[in-house]
Amino acid sequence: MVSDKREAIITASRTLFRQYGVKKTSMQDIAREAKIAVGTVYLYFKSKEEVVAAGVGEYREIHKQQTLAATRGSSSPADRLRTYIRQRFRACADTRKAGSHAAEIARAVVRVQPDRFLEESEWFFQTVQSILEQGAQQGEFSLETAEVDTTVFLYSIAWFFPYERSEFFPEPDEETLMASVEWFIRKWTKR
Amino acid sequence: MVSDKREAIITASRTLFRQYGVKKTSMQDIAREAKIAVGTVYLYFKSKEEVVAAGVGEYREIHKQQTLAATRGSSSPADRLRTYIRQRFRACADTRKAGSHAAEIARAVVRVQPDRFLEESEWFFQTVQSILEQGAQQGEFSLETAEVDTTVFLYSIAWFFPYERSEFFPEPDEETLMASVEWFIRKWTKR
Repeated sequence: MVSDKREAIITASRTLFRQYGVKKTSMQDIAREAKIAVGTVYLYFKSKEEVVAAGVGEYREIHKQQTLAATRGSSSPADRLRTYIRQRFRACADTRKAGSHAAEIARAVVRVQPDRFLEESEWFFQTVQSILEQGAQQGEFSLETAEVDTTVFLYSIAWFFPYERSEFFPEPDEETLMASVEWFIRKWTKR
Repeated sequence: MVSDKREAIITASRTLFRQYGVKKTSMQDIAREAKIAVGTVYLYFKSKEEVVAAGVGEYREIHKQQTLAATRGSSSPADRLRTYIRQRFRACADTRKAGSHAAEIARAVVRVQPDRFLEESEWFFQTVQSILEQGAQQGEFSLETAEVDTTVFLYSIAWFFPYERSEFFPEPDEETLMASVEWFIRKWTKR
């Protein structure tokens, strides 16, 4: 199937980018890893940059789906906030698996899609703000304003979302993040 | 005066470490920058590592003084928290002036004083917890527990205290940080 091969190429490229970085990975390497003839790879992607963009596009699509579920789900605003933050934490932790190549991969992403990180953080902001507004409308949350509380909250969890591993700090921990999220939810739901 | 020369050596070393990094700065370079004979420099410091340690010691002493003022001052707990966080933000921003050499300098610091960053973050934690406890005792703050609220608060401002400049994020902004601090103070002082 057509989409299977496309998928195999993207998956193979991800493995190689993480292991060797973007620069040191060639289209030939990707073809070999995906067990597909290099000529066939070029039927799907004209260049390595297009493979990078396709990989980013997949992550973007996942975030979009999570955003829709977070703003339109039937569970409580608090529960949707918990789920969304946990999903985003795991997505971010997953990209850091690239280890020492994470920065190089992020740079390659910025080259092919300059507004990628800005767009992602705007989605993040709008999704959280929308959940808080719904919570306020349903009488579940008591806010200063949705914008102020969203801003403070997002800076408050920002430390848990680094793009690269730090040599000076340990990896951020999901349970510590979620404990902070619960503290905010308690403040918002306090009568 | 003896302490003037010692001070001149430390100041000169800081300038050079920031401009060229620790590795590429020699005792000869430090002597030249401080306008002191290299033999005299060796009367004060046996090695470059001792100069690094002395520079760290000065920052440590400043933090200690700020910690004492924050926990024993006569102004309100909220005001002492504001002042202390602002001072620590500026100290941290100051170390980032080393730009691309910040990480190398931090590594040199860890070599000469392995527990330096752990000690600093413990001081930070104890100081904030002590201010919050005083606020609760004086009936100014309403907390879950001093420990829980200190933990959440410190993670919430952690993003504003990076050791290195990031190529993907802008420099943290003092006024945005202080807006978050005010939000927390409002939550703590809410009746």
